[in-house]
Amino acid sequence: MDIIESLNWRYAVKKFDSEKLLPQEKIDKIKEAFNLTPTSYGLQPLKMLVIRDKDLQQQLVPLSFNQQQIGQASDLLVLCAEETIDEAYIVDYFERVKAMRGTDEDILKPFRDFLISDFGSKSQSEIFAWAVNQVYIALGNLMTVCAAEEIDACPVEGFIPDEYDKVLKLNEKGLRSVLVMPIGYRAEDDILADLAKVRKPLTDVIL
Amino acid sequence: MDIIESLNWRYAVKKFDSEKLLPQEKIDKIKEAFNLTPTSYGLQPLKMLVIRDKDLQQQLVPLSFNQQQIGQASDLLVLCAEETIDEAYIVDYFERVKAMRGTDEDILKPFRDFLISDFGSKSQSEIFAWAVNQVYIALGNLMTVCAAEEIDACPVEGFIPDEYDKVLKLNEKGLRSVLVMPIGYRAEDDILADLAKVRKPLTDVIL
Repeated sequence: MDIIESLNWRYAVKKFDSEKLLPQEKIDKIKEAFNLTPTSYGLQPLKMLVIRDKDLQQQLVPLSFNQQQIGQASDLLVLCAEETIDEAYIVDYFERVKAMRGTDEDILKPFRDFLISDFGSKSQSEIFAWAVNQVYIALGNLMTVCAAEEIDACPVEGFIPDEYDKVLKLNEKGLRSVLVMPIGYRAEDDILADLAKVRKPLTDVIL
Repeated sequence: MDIIESLNWRYAVKKFDSEKLLPQEKIDKIKEAFNLTPTSYGLQPLKMLVIRDKDLQQQLVPLSFNQQQIGQASDLLVLCAEETIDEAYIVDYFERVKAMRGTDEDILKPFRDFLISDFGSKSQSEIFAWAVNQVYIALGNLMTVCAAEEIDACPVEGFIPDEYDKVLKLNEKGLRSVLVMPIGYRAEDDILADLAKVRKPLTDVIL
């Protein structure tokens, strides 16, 4: 399929076929695609949990306004933002650049100093808001990658992040859940699958 | 190219070839892909300007911390969020659902009432923050679509939204600029094109 056909093929799945599991090759692609998400300054302030555990998924359903897709899906992606971006985090990024590209310290130093100073001047909540934005980029990327790979998905903002964080012990890892995305295969009787896609006319949206 | 190869092919272009313009067919795909972005409740609180006007692009360079890509690119995408989501906006959405799907009023009414009440209980700044999140989803979608279409791009958060809004008269349209994305073709001498992609090890990013 052409990428536009793929985007037309996808929809926010209302009912997954809970018997059908995604093959490992597809899961590996999703993981790789998540890690390839472009992020601000390349800092990657985001991590992802890939949950395939029906008991745990069922436990998360009531923390997701009873959206049954959370429990039905082959896999549940939980997209998280880093709680803290400190000097050590930024230094670590530049060590990675040095290791992967062999860039000279002379070239890296001014950019590293700028980032440390820039992030140092921001509040924790400003930095967290910035990190959350990057998680939304990852969601947009993954939705399109899933469409291209004919993986069904449903983006979910409607869940209780604090409760997810407790159940999944995310705070211990310095993370907070931001977005959830069940993936798998649409059920044959999902009534939403064949409905027309509702979008504004292109002339209203593009200026 | 496989979608993972496409994501590896892309990078944040530092220098565009200002002589090379994207064919109309590619621009049309970008517009269509933007309109197919999945958004919260399907409300699409976002619009996009597609600017191909070198004088205007040059005028925007100093409002973008002198990032030359803004002036060089074949086209400049300016992704905007709606300033206001009011009852009329929500009613309009449900008219569109009715027109495109023929859904019964009985089915639409409870969901419409819920959304009107839900948005009515939120502050303007909360609603705008929600709209901004949807614009980030669009960016993630478009970055991946560009990669799949072998269109070079560079996502830009570093610009002065208020100044863009003035120059592009966005407030008159009830919009605010959120993200900018020059697109086109990388210059042959863009030194960033052949550098290794810097990413964390997959085992650090996926839990």
